Amino acid sequence: MRAKYRPLWLNEEGDLEVLDQRYLPHEELTRILKTGQDATEAISDMTVRGAGVIGNVAAMGVYLLAREFEGDKAKIIQEASKIRASRPTAVNLMWAVDKMVEVIKNSDDVLNDAREEAIKICDEDVRRSEAIGKIGCDIIEDIMKKKGLKSINILTHCNAGWLAIIDSGTALAPIYEAKRRGIDVHVWVDETRPRNQGANLTSWELLDAGVDHTIIADNTGGHLMQHNMVDMVITGADRVTRCGDAANKIGTYLKALSAKDNNIPFYIALPLSTFDLESCDGVKEIDIEMRSEDEVHIMRGLDSDGNPQEIRITPKGSKAVNYGFDVTPARLITGLITEAGLIEANEKAIKELK
Amino acid sequence: MRAKYRPLWLNEEGDLEVLDQRYLPHEELTRILKTGQDATEAISDMTVRGAGVIGNVAAMGVYLLAREFEGDKAKIIQEASKIRASRPTAVNLMWAVDKMVEVIKNSDDVLNDAREEAIKICDEDVRRSEAIGKIGCDIIEDIMKKKGLKSINILTHCNAGWLAIIDSGTALAPIYEAKRRGIDVHVWVDETRPRNQGANLTSWELLDAGVDHTIIADNTGGHLMQHNMVDMVITGADRVTRCGDAANKIGTYLKALSAKDNNIPFYIALPLSTFDLESCDGVKEIDIEMRSEDEVHIMRGLDSDGNPQEIRITPKGSKAVNYGFDVTPARLITGLITEAGLIEANEKAIKELK
Repeated sequence: MRAKYRPLWLNEEGDLEVLDQRYLPHEELTRILKTGQDATEAISDMTVRGAGVIGNVAAMGVYLLAREFEGDKAKIIQEASKIRASRPTAVNLMWAVDKMVEVIKNSDDVLNDAREEAIKICDEDVRRSEAIGKIGCDIIEDIMKKKGLKSINILTHCNAGWLAIIDSGTALAPIYEAKRRGIDVHVWVDETRPRNQGANLTSWELLDAGVDHTIIADNTGGHLMQHNMVDMVITGADRVTRCGDAANKIGTYLKALSAKDNNIPFYIALPLSTFDLESCDGVKEIDIEMRSEDEVHIMRGLDSDGNPQEIRITPKGSKAVNYGFDVTPARLITGLITEAGLIEANEKAIKELK
Repeated sequence: MRAKYRPLWLNEEGDLEVLDQRYLPHEELTRILKTGQDATEAISDMTVRGAGVIGNVAAMGVYLLAREFEGDKAKIIQEASKIRASRPTAVNLMWAVDKMVEVIKNSDDVLNDAREEAIKICDEDVRRSEAIGKIGCDIIEDIMKKKGLKSINILTHCNAGWLAIIDSGTALAPIYEAKRRGIDVHVWVDETRPRNQGANLTSWELLDAGVDHTIIADNTGGHLMQHNMVDMVITGADRVTRCGDAANKIGTYLKALSAKDNNIPFYIALPLSTFDLESCDGVKEIDIEMRSEDEVHIMRGLDSDGNPQEIRITPKGSKAVNYGFDVTPARLITGLITEAGLIEANEKAIKELK
């Protein structure tokens, strides 16, 4: 049964059903995942995306492996490595698979324990998301108080709402909490080319929640910041190093530079599972996923009859390149909003937290 | 008769014919302008765009007014003010109309003098563009020499090629000159949302000229710069203040910030007619055009049958906002490449030049 604000659930047949995010906002379709291979595909082709949900589907994918291989630990663990490699940048993915493998190794009832653990990993995100929302909203109220604002303009990049981390997201969780507290909040939604997770997913979520928002081309944020039209920036992250460098959707770094140049607070919201304590210098050490150039060439939308349609927007003969993420150095980040509290983006603060 | 690399020309009927840039790269259509009103429309609906070409079409538009009103100076000058107001940010537009009005005021043969002056304004751009190309290419060679490079990667934003300034552009002129000199040059082409002048026009020009290039989402430049994949940035400008602040296509400021953060030279190429000596602080003083939000919502391209198609890419119900330009402060600009030489982006250097 699907609960609202959950993009994945175990259906009545016991299979994993997910909201197919590739077709939003134009079509609400679901996809049924029956095997570990299905989960790997759904992650790598971006049927599901977003740091938390990738981890959730990976965990559920390991459960599907347990079902498929009837508790054969060696086989399950071997196949789980394929899920773990389905996308290179998201650290929650590795974290979730490792956690599942650990449980399976020590289990006497693999199928049941794997199922329980996968459900637990999903349910824990709800609690994390709620905590991030409250802590982030306290920061919003603090900024409004200090600046004497009656309403606040927040810019976000990509999608870190409930489609990314159940059930209210990371970057969007403070915004949903602000709405609940009756704060007058307006969100600048970066379109987020080439896959348009902002225009497709964040705006769809905010429309549904009745949060005032405006979609902008990714080029626009700097101008808005120069003209005092942005009071704070909040984004999610796919991996944050122990020194506080944050890998997030490509283009985040440019917004962080602009925020710094205009003295605008720039926050990253993330669950603790997004920290990668193995790495420090994010620009040098984080593996950045390169995706198909077709994501740049081809756009999806509705034609004038309201039918879904794909078009090629670039000249045939021109090549494109498509890096999925960039790294925002810690020096540009005002603070990290985690379920365990707000901390500074530096090694000392992160080590104390973990 | 149309000469190659000219997006506007007087046709056999004596009307102004222009390449309709709204349909490139998918269709090569032309539009015939018979009246001053036609010219105003073609500029404001972006049939023609680009700092130089806007000025050219404005000058030709004043000639069309002279033809329409049979040399009635008062009427021509009155109507010319509408052309002058067709787009607010481009200073060449005002410059060209003012120059035409001056000639008409002092003329004994309005129709002939207006025609001659409009042709002269266009022809002078060819010389300017050539000079900018040579000076800019010397800088390219200098950077390659200093860094010991065998090939060079140049990033550009929007389109400042021959579609923008006849007949080889400003930002692209040094690249075309590099190609002529046999330099191994590769261009990173910012897509340039929301109107995609990079993906639509710059890539089309570079394909035609056989210049190696790769289209990237506007979000990508920062990552490339962090990873030493960009050796220099060159863009055009729509208005540069006497203090060196440059208004150019929205998003230019973000690339300039990133270039600064990574010690990459950032150049603006412009004809002297793009300087606006009346203003100094560009962020405060330059009027930034706001265009229709539909440019964010609607994309144009080719469907799978190769037919031109428009699609809506955002959810119905979400609003968008569309600022056409932003301002890059002089402190982020390495140098200004003009037909009169390379200068620093500051008041002293600009005043000495003019």
